Amino acid sequence: MRTVTKDNITDVFMGYFGPDTDPRLREVMASLAKHLHAFAKDVNLTHAEWQKGIEFMEWAGEISDKERHEFVLLSDVLGLSSLVDMINSVPEGTSSSVLGPFHISGAPDIPFGHDMKRDYEGEVLLARGRVTDPSGNPIEGAKIDIGQTAPNGLYSSQDPDQDTYSFHGIQTTGADGAYGFTTVKPVSYTVPTDGPVGDILRATGRHPWRPSHLHYIITADGYRPLVTEIFPDDDPYLDEDTVFGVREDLVMKYVEQTPETFPDGYDLSGSVDEPYLVADFDLKLVPLT
Amino acid sequence: MRTVTKDNITDVFMGYFGPDTDPRLREVMASLAKHLHAFAKDVNLTHAEWQKGIEFMEWAGEISDKERHEFVLLSDVLGLSSLVDMINSVPEGTSSSVLGPFHISGAPDIPFGHDMKRDYEGEVLLARGRVTDPSGNPIEGAKIDIGQTAPNGLYSSQDPDQDTYSFHGIQTTGADGAYGFTTVKPVSYTVPTDGPVGDILRATGRHPWRPSHLHYIITADGYRPLVTEIFPDDDPYLDEDTVFGVREDLVMKYVEQTPETFPDGYDLSGSVDEPYLVADFDLKLVPLT
Repeated sequence: MRTVTKDNITDVFMGYFGPDTDPRLREVMASLAKHLHAFAKDVNLTHAEWQKGIEFMEWAGEISDKERHEFVLLSDVLGLSSLVDMINSVPEGTSSSVLGPFHISGAPDIPFGHDMKRDYEGEVLLARGRVTDPSGNPIEGAKIDIGQTAPNGLYSSQDPDQDTYSFHGIQTTGADGAYGFTTVKPVSYTVPTDGPVGDILRATGRHPWRPSHLHYIITADGYRPLVTEIFPDDDPYLDEDTVFGVREDLVMKYVEQTPETFPDGYDLSGSVDEPYLVADFDLKLVPLT
Repeated sequence: MRTVTKDNITDVFMGYFGPDTDPRLREVMASLAKHLHAFAKDVNLTHAEWQKGIEFMEWAGEISDKERHEFVLLSDVLGLSSLVDMINSVPEGTSSSVLGPFHISGAPDIPFGHDMKRDYEGEVLLARGRVTDPSGNPIEGAKIDIGQTAPNGLYSSQDPDQDTYSFHGIQTTGADGAYGFTTVKPVSYTVPTDGPVGDILRATGRHPWRPSHLHYIITADGYRPLVTEIFPDDDPYLDEDTVFGVREDLVMKYVEQTPETFPDGYDLSGSVDEPYLVADFDLKLVPLT
């Protein structure tokens, strides 16, 4: 009889694998089992702790649905999502960063100059820049999937009072690679704390805040897709983003401008009569190899 | 600004912890983060693989309910459940083994000699033994929560055609520490393969079989609870239990007996007219310290 022990269980586990197992799957599962088993042995995990872990996962499953992704949030607050971003980042391009659990697909196309702020309260932010290759050449036809919270700190997917796609839109660049739109100045917000991930944060004395940001997902034929977000440099949570999403090159300055400088070509052109902010940020894509 | 990198993310993660964090929670989370991050780095986990993992967990959550515990099954087939058993086992007592995802609470009390087989087809198995301390002294008032599958390989919690507690019961030992009941000879069975865990088994070329067994959960005042299961030594899956539950001291022999030897004191006494099997197994509990 094969005797399974705590010393050989990882080998026994791998010995169960069939000969036709995909080599990459074998590699991933071998490392997963090695680290999972080493974790349990390193801390001498008790039955009661194991049971808590199971109940945690079951609760995360129960609270999840099409719009609530507690396992993504768990990965985010454990630093796994950011680590995967960093492992797969390409130094020639703009850094990637976490997408987070609130992204919704199917946002409407918006033209250059579109206003996403509408009647919401808050400072006008004009966000603009160019999508380029690593040498700075403009990329035409790049699609930028834009998303942010409303001024109440909630994404539309979390907030029944918002339209499905409020503060979301997809803009396509022209020959000059330029994008540009107006919105409301993003706010710092907390990740949801009413589920098991909130329990972890409380139990470990962590706050649930993220620095304010704009999400951009950029796709263009022939280039690696880029999932990223940009942060203003004066946000109080920049040093301690609860999901570890801040990268040095994604931090930029909102520059305040007087109303008369507001450019043409925007829905709000001619109607801005207060100082407004400008977020100028170029997005560098890396060609597919 | 604090720059998070793949080299410092584990330290940054621990740096977020509050000073009042429970020391054991800090220890467990530090090891979990260390191994989780090392896993992602060791295999250079891609975004697509991460996404598959998230979808796996979400599916496991969706398929789980009060009677289906896919996260327990995942822990079982990854060897984690068995490893936790082995980490916490006490050499002086009977080995513990996995409870599995099908246990139901609240089984009815059954007297010594009770027949759980009733009208089900199959060989009669008489299971008996004593609950003792490590020196072999009988333990009075020990409760044995007994469970097994029906001959179709399904637990009552999986099978709408069975009564809620068929093949389940709780027996309390008398002054001699003895337990005894009749049932049907257990069968090898497969864990459920219609969920994400089934997908893992198929993708890695693993079979879903468990060797046949009887589950015993034994509790007694002043002793460590024991969750275990016993296996006949002729089961074809003894060497490759898909949940790694077999321990040397839990393997025993079903001894065939002629009908006229059937003992008094059992519901079936006097009515057995075919050869029957005997599973004699003593259960050693370890005092609480």
